[in-house]
Amino acid sequence: MQSNKKPLMNVSQLHRFLVDVFPQVKNDFRIESVSCSEIKVKMFVQDKHLRPGGTISGPSMFGLADVSVYLLTIAQIGPKALAVTTNISMDFMRKPSGGNDLVAWARLLKLGRRLSVGEVLIFSDDLDNPVARASMTYSIPPVGSKADV
Amino acid sequence: MQSNKKPLMNVSQLHRFLVDVFPQVKNDFRIESVSCSEIKVKMFVQDKHLRPGGTISGPSMFGLADVSVYLLTIAQIGPKALAVTTNISMDFMRKPSGGNDLVAWARLLKLGRRLSVGEVLIFSDDLDNPVARASMTYSIPPVGSKADV
Amino acid sequence: MQSNKKPLMNVSQLHRFLVDVFPQVKNDFRIESVSCSEIKVKMFVQDKHLRPGGTISGPSMFGLADVSVYLLTIAQIGPKALAVTTNISMDFMRKPSGGNDLVAWARLLKLGRRLSVGEVLIFSDDLDNPVARASMTYSIPPVGSKADV
Amino acid sequence: MQSNKKPLMNVSQLHRFLVDVFPQVKNDFRIESVSCSEIKVKMFVQDKHLRPGGTISGPSMFGLADVSVYLLTIAQIGPKALAVTTNISMDFMRKPSGGNDLVAWARLLKLGRRLSVGEVLIFSDDLDNPVARASMTYSIPPVGSKADV
Repeated sequence: MQSNKKPLMNVSQLHRFLVDVFPQVKNDFRIESVSCSEIKVKMFVQDKHLRPGGTISGPSMFGLADVSVYLLTIAQIGPKALAVTTNISMDFMRKPSGGNDLVAWARLLKLGRRLSVGEVLIFSDDLDNPVARASMTYSIPPVGSKADV
Repeated sequence: MQSNKKPLMNVSQLHRFLVDVFPQVKNDFRIESVSCSEIKVKMFVQDKHLRPGGTISGPSMFGLADVSVYLLTIAQIGPKALAVTTNISMDFMRKPSGGNDLVAWARLLKLGRRLSVGEVLIFSDDLDNPVARASMTYSIPPVGSKADV
Repeated sequence: MQSNKKPLMNVSQLHRFLVDVFPQVKNDFRIESVSCSEIKVKMFVQDKHLRPGGTISGPSMFGLADVSVYLLTIAQIGPKALAVTTNISMDFMRKPSGGNDLVAWARLLKLGRRLSVGEVLIFSDDLDNPVARASMTYSIPPVGSKADV
Repeated sequence: MQSNKKPLMNVSQLHRFLVDVFPQVKNDFRIESVSCSEIKVKMFVQDKHLRPGGTISGPSMFGLADVSVYLLTIAQIGPKALAVTTNISMDFMRKPSGGNDLVAWARLLKLGRRLSVGEVLIFSDDLDNPVARASMTYSIPPVGSKADV
């Protein structure tokens, strides 16, 4: 999916979309960069993301993976077509310490008319190797229709 | 995995464990029943679980699936051995409306010395068919060791 | 998905479809029963399915899971619309011995206009507990179109 | 997982291991390269891998993904410890034409004492973008023990 093309939406347009559509989590994430094939998203780890022992909860990492590939898809097709997560597969490989932020690197593997598929590696600031891996599929509804998959 | 045996921990013991270990989410869930092979867990849907349009967020459903199979595993092996989620696969099939609570029915498919595997169907109070499906694997550390998988 | 309705195709119609569309594997499987929500498929374990040590190979179990949910979907929508597997998640829980046939019990969790989702448990004749679990998604192309997802 | 270190087994040692342990498929695959973190494996597409319409079957692609990450794990830990596939998640994104060989690029994301996790992209000789993606987990039994997970 590499190319010289630019995505339909840039970082600041994506940020405004995030604020509009996910107001509950808008302060949790910062979009670092986006292209036609990749996105980098930082998650600011806060108390609500932690589990006893000071590690980061599974649902928090799930949320980071999901928002990353979702925004990467929206960046290509624009904000009107609301994609719907239909499948996620995730491996938790190392325990991130709660004192560090997380960074997701996501890559678009397929952008079809009906489905997009992406994969993500999640890194903790204090570890070289990824703490988690995820792949997910979104259903892209036809223009003008409801998201009835 | 059906049998007449009782699990090591009953509903009220599991509830106390939940309060101790996951204080942030202790008011989100109520354990309805537990056996050697199955558990039923209700999630009280609140504002923090919602997405615009009034549906329930993916991370919230992930959290319900994860806590259900986790507690079902702990119910069999006791609270000392801390299992670690290593893998989850999840399909989102229908959009639950945010005005209804969710119920997870989880089943234990394998309880080995090192790995447990379970699967979950999540239902919304207003729909006959499941809104989501998940399967997950937990690594069970040897007694006395840290969770180094 | 339980109901009194009958599926569009019965066991013998499904069997003829299998012979036509998958001639390479037509002697590997026997469809035992099919309804609007469930199918039971037996796999006759042969030398080509084995691994050293006498166990059954992963690809063989994958094939059984895939053919089961595929036929269950086709049974509902008819043979004209050719569904395409887009995602599979599978857990291998116990080693089946190669001397026994396998049986798959599959269940349809969703049959939408564009996607179907099913899950399977695979049993070996000599074990009470399932040897593997799978969930899969099929993309259903619009009538008259090619399978361009 | 990048480093200057060499894996415990090189391409020709891995090939001999493949011939010994998987005699049924030894002529299907050629190991192109292996390092401490990556492996490249070619699959020679033959009649037995095809589906009507001339595309390659799902079980064949599953087999290629599985053998690739399996050999990548064995290359690091040696042939004595027999790893067992416990989980696979796979997305099928494009239809490869049956007239071209497939190449798998696999990467090791985690090599723990008990679990290894890897991911794979599968390419067809005639397409720039990957035709499939997989991630899988292997259980590594303790030295001297049976693979009882």
